[in-house]
Amino acid sequence: MDRIARLEAIEDIRALKAKYFRCMDCKLWDELPSVFTRDMTVVTPAGDIYSEGGANYAASLRHSLEHAVSCHQGLTAEIEIVDAANARAIWAMQDVIEWEDRHPRQGWKSILGRGHYHETYRHEDGAWRIATLSLTRLRLDIEWPEDGAQ
Amino acid sequence: MDRIARLEAIEDIRALKAKYFRCMDCKLWDELPSVFTRDMTVVTPAGDIYSEGGANYAASLRHSLEHAVSCHQGLTAEIEIVDAANARAIWAMQDVIEWEDRHPRQGWKSILGRGHYHETYRHEDGAWRIATLSLTRLRLDIEWPEDGAQ
Amino acid sequence: MDRIARLEAIEDIRALKAKYFRCMDCKLWDELPSVFTRDMTVVTPAGDIYSEGGANYAASLRHSLEHAVSCHQGLTAEIEIVDAANARAIWAMQDVIEWEDRHPRQGWKSILGRGHYHETYRHEDGAWRIATLSLTRLRLDIEWPEDGAQ
Repeated sequence: MDRIARLEAIEDIRALKAKYFRCMDCKLWDELPSVFTRDMTVVTPAGDIYSEGGANYAASLRHSLEHAVSCHQGLTAEIEIVDAANARAIWAMQDVIEWEDRHPRQGWKSILGRGHYHETYRHEDGAWRIATLSLTRLRLDIEWPEDGAQ
Repeated sequence: MDRIARLEAIEDIRALKAKYFRCMDCKLWDELPSVFTRDMTVVTPAGDIYSEGGANYAASLRHSLEHAVSCHQGLTAEIEIVDAANARAIWAMQDVIEWEDRHPRQGWKSILGRGHYHETYRHEDGAWRIATLSLTRLRLDIEWPEDGAQ
Repeated sequence: MDRIARLEAIEDIRALKAKYFRCMDCKLWDELPSVFTRDMTVVTPAGDIYSEGGANYAASLRHSLEHAVSCHQGLTAEIEIVDAANARAIWAMQDVIEWEDRHPRQGWKSILGRGHYHETYRHEDGAWRIATLSLTRLRLDIEWPEDGAQ
């Protein structure tokens, strides 16, 4: 892989991650699936598969965030281009989310989280896309609804 | 435009945005106007012109922030180089501002805001500068002074 | 220095800073010293030497942070490559740290800080490393332990 192409790939992945956050936070549900590969997988920190298929995960994010104000913040990243079609990165992150009522599965009223995304990327159908994603937390501050069981 | 020049332009715009934040937050009022083009325009999310002229906007920022502790934080960005003299970007952002007394026009005691800058850039007088800026908010948490009418 | 090498150096320094934060926050104490030059120096905003030697500073960070949840966040940066072996940068930053008990020297229970890292880098033993570091604060919000003298 030539040196310029490697630098361009880093920039593409940086813009991809920004678009991923923006699609979630601005509720661009029609655009969101395009940031994932078709077989995109979300993996728990323990290594279990949490979600399979980019369209499925986009739908799951929509279900979780549709009735919330979410601010997903990407910070410093270590981006590594493996070859012309494969890359990986670790991104420091912070997320600030407040639900109108509560998170549809977790029951949270709001969260303030910090941690790292561990991701791989694949060049598919002419663009870099997120292929696998795992989120580890440094801390997660949860606010529960007043009537919410903790 | 050659590929290396495009990558250099992306880096220049990234540094420009960092300098814009730093000049505001470190109160470098003499340096701040240089980050804007002469005809720099601020546009409201509705599309109305809010401010015209880079020197005017720099003076307006000074008026708003001179007696405040401000922390303007740029997060992930999608930067697109249109040609050798024109570019655009969307930047996720957070701002944390606390006024000694209150914001001179809005009356806020402090704010914690999140949103996106939508900007265009022009290469003018030998450097990239911000040509248009519009700020959309995901949320804006306002604290009012104790004696402040809300 | 050729233009591609300069762009690569910028990316290397960006990844270096991300690794510095990640090693502190994920408590990778064995990896942390490698982000510093052997003679790495921490300088106070007033210009006094606060710490000398990369291994010493890594040990000092471990002592301060080992019993804390820390989230060091790097934001926008102005990175300048001086030559093939020297560079400098200013990084906007935010840190959110909460100690199990309290900071071993300062006595803080938790802090929320914002400011700028002013750093120089040197290419040493085959990689870019942080050579000097100075941290200026825009604001520092401190929470003291309930029994703590302020």
